[in-house]
Amino acid sequence: MNTLTSLTRSHFDPHSLNKDATLMASGNGYLGIRATLEEDYTHQTRGMFCAGFYHRAGEQETTELVNLPDVVGMQITLDGEPFSLLSGTLLSSRRELRYDCGELRRELVWLSPNGQRFAIESRRFLSARRLSCFAQQLSITPLSGPATITVTTGIDATQTNVGRQHLDEAQVRVFDRAHMQGIYATQDGAHQLTISSHCRVGDGAVTHFTAKNRRLTQCSSATVEKGQSFNLEKISWIAAWLDGSGQNNDISADGLRHLRDALGQGYDALLAESAASWTTFWTRSRVEVASDSPDDQQALDFALYHLFAMTPCHDARASIAAKGLTGEGYKGHVFWDTEVFLLPFFLVTRPGVARQLLRYRWYNLPGARQKAIQYGYQGALFPWESARSGDEETPAFAAINIRTGVRQRVASALAEHHLVADIAWAVVNYYQATQDGEFMAREGLDLLRETALFWMSRTVEVNGRLELHDVIGPDEYTEHVNNNAFTNYMAHYNVAQALAWLREWQLCDAAFESRAEDFLARLWLPQPDEQGVLAQDDTFMEKPSIDLTRYQARAGSQAILLDYSRAEVNEMQILKQADVVMLTYMLPGCFTPQQMAANLAFYQPRTIHDSSLSKAIHGIVAARCHDAASAYRFWHEGTQIDLGDDPHSCDDGIHAAATGAIWLGAVQGFAGLRLHDGALSLDPCLPSHWHEMQFPLVWHGQPLRIRLTHDAVAVTARSTLSLTLWGKQVVITGQHIFYRRDFFTGKAGSGTTEGAA
Amino acid sequence: MNTLTSLTRSHFDPHSLNKDATLMASGNGYLGIRATLEEDYTHQTRGMFCAGFYHRAGEQETTELVNLPDVVGMQITLDGEPFSLLSGTLLSSRRELRYDCGELRRELVWLSPNGQRFAIESRRFLSARRLSCFAQQLSITPLSGPATITVTTGIDATQTNVGRQHLDEAQVRVFDRAHMQGIYATQDGAHQLTISSHCRVGDGAVTHFTAKNRRLTQCSSATVEKGQSFNLEKISWIAAWLDGSGQNNDISADGLRHLRDALGQGYDALLAESAASWTTFWTRSRVEVASDSPDDQQALDFALYHLFAMTPCHDARASIAAKGLTGEGYKGHVFWDTEVFLLPFFLVTRPGVARQLLRYRWYNLPGARQKAIQYGYQGALFPWESARSGDEETPAFAAINIRTGVRQRVASALAEHHLVADIAWAVVNYYQATQDGEFMAREGLDLLRETALFWMSRTVEVNGRLELHDVIGPDEYTEHVNNNAFTNYMAHYNVAQALAWLREWQLCDAAFESRAEDFLARLWLPQPDEQGVLAQDDTFMEKPSIDLTRYQARAGSQAILLDYSRAEVNEMQILKQADVVMLTYMLPGCFTPQQMAANLAFYQPRTIHDSSLSKAIHGIVAARCHDAASAYRFWHEGTQIDLGDDPHSCDDGIHAAATGAIWLGAVQGFAGLRLHDGALSLDPCLPSHWHEMQFPLVWHGQPLRIRLTHDAVAVTARSTLSLTLWGKQVVITGQHIFYRRDFFTGKAGSGTTEGAA
Repeated sequence: MNTLTSLTRSHFDPHSLNKDATLMASGNGYLGIRATLEEDYTHQTRGMFCAGFYHRAGEQETTELVNLPDVVGMQITLDGEPFSLLSGTLLSSRRELRYDCGELRRELVWLSPNGQRFAIESRRFLSARRLSCFAQQLSITPLSGPATITVTTGIDATQTNVGRQHLDEAQVRVFDRAHMQGIYATQDGAHQLTISSHCRVGDGAVTHFTAKNRRLTQCSSATVEKGQSFNLEKISWIAAWLDGSGQNNDISADGLRHLRDALGQGYDALLAESAASWTTFWTRSRVEVASDSPDDQQALDFALYHLFAMTPCHDARASIAAKGLTGEGYKGHVFWDTEVFLLPFFLVTRPGVARQLLRYRWYNLPGARQKAIQYGYQGALFPWESARSGDEETPAFAAINIRTGVRQRVASALAEHHLVADIAWAVVNYYQATQDGEFMAREGLDLLRETALFWMSRTVEVNGRLELHDVIGPDEYTEHVNNNAFTNYMAHYNVAQALAWLREWQLCDAAFESRAEDFLARLWLPQPDEQGVLAQDDTFMEKPSIDLTRYQARAGSQAILLDYSRAEVNEMQILKQADVVMLTYMLPGCFTPQQMAANLAFYQPRTIHDSSLSKAIHGIVAARCHDAASAYRFWHEGTQIDLGDDPHSCDDGIHAAATGAIWLGAVQGFAGLRLHDGALSLDPCLPSHWHEMQFPLVWHGQPLRIRLTHDAVAVTARSTLSLTLWGKQVVITGQHIFYRRDFFTGKAGSGTTEGAA
Repeated sequence: MNTLTSLTRSHFDPHSLNKDATLMASGNGYLGIRATLEEDYTHQTRGMFCAGFYHRAGEQETTELVNLPDVVGMQITLDGEPFSLLSGTLLSSRRELRYDCGELRRELVWLSPNGQRFAIESRRFLSARRLSCFAQQLSITPLSGPATITVTTGIDATQTNVGRQHLDEAQVRVFDRAHMQGIYATQDGAHQLTISSHCRVGDGAVTHFTAKNRRLTQCSSATVEKGQSFNLEKISWIAAWLDGSGQNNDISADGLRHLRDALGQGYDALLAESAASWTTFWTRSRVEVASDSPDDQQALDFALYHLFAMTPCHDARASIAAKGLTGEGYKGHVFWDTEVFLLPFFLVTRPGVARQLLRYRWYNLPGARQKAIQYGYQGALFPWESARSGDEETPAFAAINIRTGVRQRVASALAEHHLVADIAWAVVNYYQATQDGEFMAREGLDLLRETALFWMSRTVEVNGRLELHDVIGPDEYTEHVNNNAFTNYMAHYNVAQALAWLREWQLCDAAFESRAEDFLARLWLPQPDEQGVLAQDDTFMEKPSIDLTRYQARAGSQAILLDYSRAEVNEMQILKQADVVMLTYMLPGCFTPQQMAANLAFYQPRTIHDSSLSKAIHGIVAARCHDAASAYRFWHEGTQIDLGDDPHSCDDGIHAAATGAIWLGAVQGFAGLRLHDGALSLDPCLPSHWHEMQFPLVWHGQPLRIRLTHDAVAVTARSTLSLTLWGKQVVITGQHIFYRRDFFTGKAGSGTTEGAA
């Protein structure tokens, strides 16, 4: 492996505090903790989130992922001067998030307003081994002369989700004059949380505790000689007790026991065991590239770091929120992003995690059935936005309409039904990649049958053919249309797959079979025109188009809505993301390469890419069309959604799907990996400045390693493997190098054994 | 009148942001709005409060005065640079709160980090006429060249009481593309709030509205030439609908109608009508002094400004919170402070307000009776801390005990019963000052009877005498004692007055009469020793004392509790405030001047003055002992509780009682005003550097004016008035000057008519 990169910052910029707090957040799938600075800043939003820890703050409110009490903040006073980078002078500064071990480090030298220099270092990490354990270290060294240093930190339960309170303080204690502990409960009583924290300071320090106004703090103070250091080590144990699981346990004693155990280890030992878990993750999933641009490896490591940090591998009742565990955005809800943009990574690196993500949907079938009944359908209509219960969580209203002064109903929950087929698509992919019959026999077939039933009940008959009316496709700028191509094709796929797999398992009753066959025969699938272009929906081609250049230049900002109302946008050829391009990505077997290219070309000038899901998919389709330059351009622009120059690109959390898309773009785009029809297929199209790319895979339970150059593909497999390479089937055992030229000169299938890849 | 002072600040100090936000707060008794700066700062706590608008955020929580959505904050961006005094350079700065009209003005010149100078002016006031109307003006002038100025402001409902959410957003709208309106409801549905806001900006500005994350804002942007101004005028109409009163009204339309009406007036006309109300207030209540120290007049004007701002004259179901309407401290609860420290001011300046404050208690008799029953007593046991319902609101637990790590029960609600007698004391004073028979016949006698019944049921019999056991006096550092002198004397006074006035009204039944006579005959009243010193309670004199000098130097900080536990403090002669000194103030007729002086001298070294109620009372008693120097020293130190140098003296709100005590100390201390036994009495003791003092009074419905010098007292009355001057009774009609020397040389009673005082 080439060395893991890290994310570094060498300047302090108050404008990008929240962006960096997101990008550099700690996470282990159970907890996520924003990388806020120790000291407070006006617009710095602290955040700690626990997977599945949702609550609804009131009848008019939306269920949201609770922003938990803060343990990161520290008020630092240096010889009476409050430490803040807005005062004094910052002489040097460096922050680094180490992807190899998940540790965040900060080093700086500060000249205080009264002329004293101080060196300040801090380190922190969330353990990848002990999921409840968060460790921090702070070291302050006066460089100009002796100084009195005071640090106040503890558990701050004044945190809210922008003013919405979710937690009541149930108990606040200090045990053994050393261990702070707060116990909190959601206001509905469903979930409990214990935070136990200990701050170890040097012998010379004077400490006292205060509990006031929802803040439990330890204030530690010492006078330190020049060149000596004031050291503070803070270990916190943060344990959520979901769904009443804490009611019959002594959650206070449990928290203290685990805290004491972690304290017995100390920061360095805890870090070492956590780093070992990170090493395992990287070994099993890292994508390495030899690129002329170091940004490319950086983006891939960034993406995978967050894919680890955001994914609740420990609990099949939780899934991945649209912002992971890094911010309050999208209320922590789960969208189709999970199945389409995130699950594919796990599918071929940690299939067990992919199975859990699908189990989350399976557990939530009751809510999906209920929603279907509510709208007069059959089967399972999964909620557009989902939390823990599986109920529909989409807020009823969106932001205020600037022209009419009224808030607009959110139509997604009413009509954005493609999610149902997306889940079926992920189920089929999962089975094809894993051959996990146990899952398919129970959860998989349940999901396929119920989603198919939904579609079969969703149609209207028009002159003998079945149509899907009043839907919204992935392009949310076009609402309430008939026969959205993406939706119709995906619905067809869903029913076809359900029928096929139920037959395969001999679980298909006659009624279902005849109904499905009728559906498949009569569902209207819009066809491409002579140029290969497929209309997005029945009325799309009749709408006027405008020049979108200036909106494309501000992609992601939704600037179009400052100039046009949603209703006006709906009546023009203005796409948030291109449904048909997305469709050619999802179901490549349905379209010829020429059709893919035609649709990419047709929709591109009509697409703003205001969705963070858009560019990466365009990039993959471009790669499949063997347009490496466009593919890279789209992919690179996709990496900039979070990592780009905009200081507010991700203030309220990471674009989880966009990080998944960085991996997707590399592996499904440049490496050309496809799981089509149960076969593993590679058709590489490396950017010209990428000299080599390699990554591990798991396929049908077997670990593989793939190494690509412009000329060759090296595959390492433990046992016999059949795959499609440059369109031709090959079979290997062990390690083989395949040369591109051989496939285009008739020598396909030959390979050369080599050393370790 | 000499010119009204104002409160000014010519520097920006981030440390005293919250203190100044309290001191310079706007208020009209209905609403209070903290004087936060337009721009945000990390530790700046915004606050808007409405009298009576309480809510309890959860079962474990305490009812509190809700911190309402903010309308003050404005995000200002100057050529892309966020305006903050922590960056760039502040070239000049001045803030002024004008006591004459309640307007807060701010002027500054700022050099932005990119080298441009801007002049910024803002003005704001809360109308004293239209209680729901808050008006703001902002003017920004680029001084270096043209600049693009952006201001974002609106209604920010992310406000919480340190993390506790009270309000749900019920509706957020923008009407006529101009008027923002948020409707909020307490989570229990009891109260509603509408805030309607309009921002008028110049024609050239581009504006748009956003509603997101509980913030409804208007963003206004314009490019302005050098020397030209960007002007914004914001009028807000803030209307609370308490106790469900909004349910059957169209509160949205009501808010818009009033907003439009206020907009029709405009800032300057609204200010003029509000200033007229302030003029009336000052004419009826101002205390003027000719002092060598300008701080003295400043302190008096400050105190009276806040006495106006904090007092809900519009609603007898509301009373004065311990921090007025200026902060979250003490949860906005009502204590004995109201009757003992605040009501006396209104009693002799606006007796109708005093009556309303007593009605508040009368309305809350059901809760007080309930509490008495709960603890096995009769009559009315008023809650130690009271909100709107009249239920006991004292939190069950105080801050964590630093030694044991556990939270301590708050004993006040269990044993600090003297409040009951304090209310009776205020009732008697009210009647004596007003002769308001209508009030006495109903509310007054109800209150006297019920409070007396409580005391008669509160005793224990010990060897034939009645004692009051397990009480807490005003000195909260001494808990659970027997026969606290303050409590026993006040209980005796309460029953004696109830008996007397019920007899006077011929409403005293035989059972009450005989019970009261027995109580009065047998209640143990501890007696002073030979030196005249009265023991604070049965065990006080046996406790050890320590040197308190260093704690007295930090009076108000409760620093003693960092060194000793509450239990330890309880077992020493350590007083938060001196009960016996307080008693000699409350019931001066019970003690000789020599006894007053002896107790003042004995208790002073044993008193830390950690209560903000302490020093002013000591000062009044010193004045009554004719020790002008000590009296002034105590009074002046009392003025420093809020106004002193401590940058955090009143972060969480004004010390309401301490502002009342500034007036008390001047009028009851230096002017020697007493209402003893129904007679108006003056016995001046002016500080040596005060050359003259004058103030208006209302006595038995008659307006008076008093003017004092060291040598003479001038009294102006419209009709015949009998008063006691320097211990001798005089009768006047019209205007008289009395010379001190005449009273001590046997010429008492002579007067000289003069021109207007």
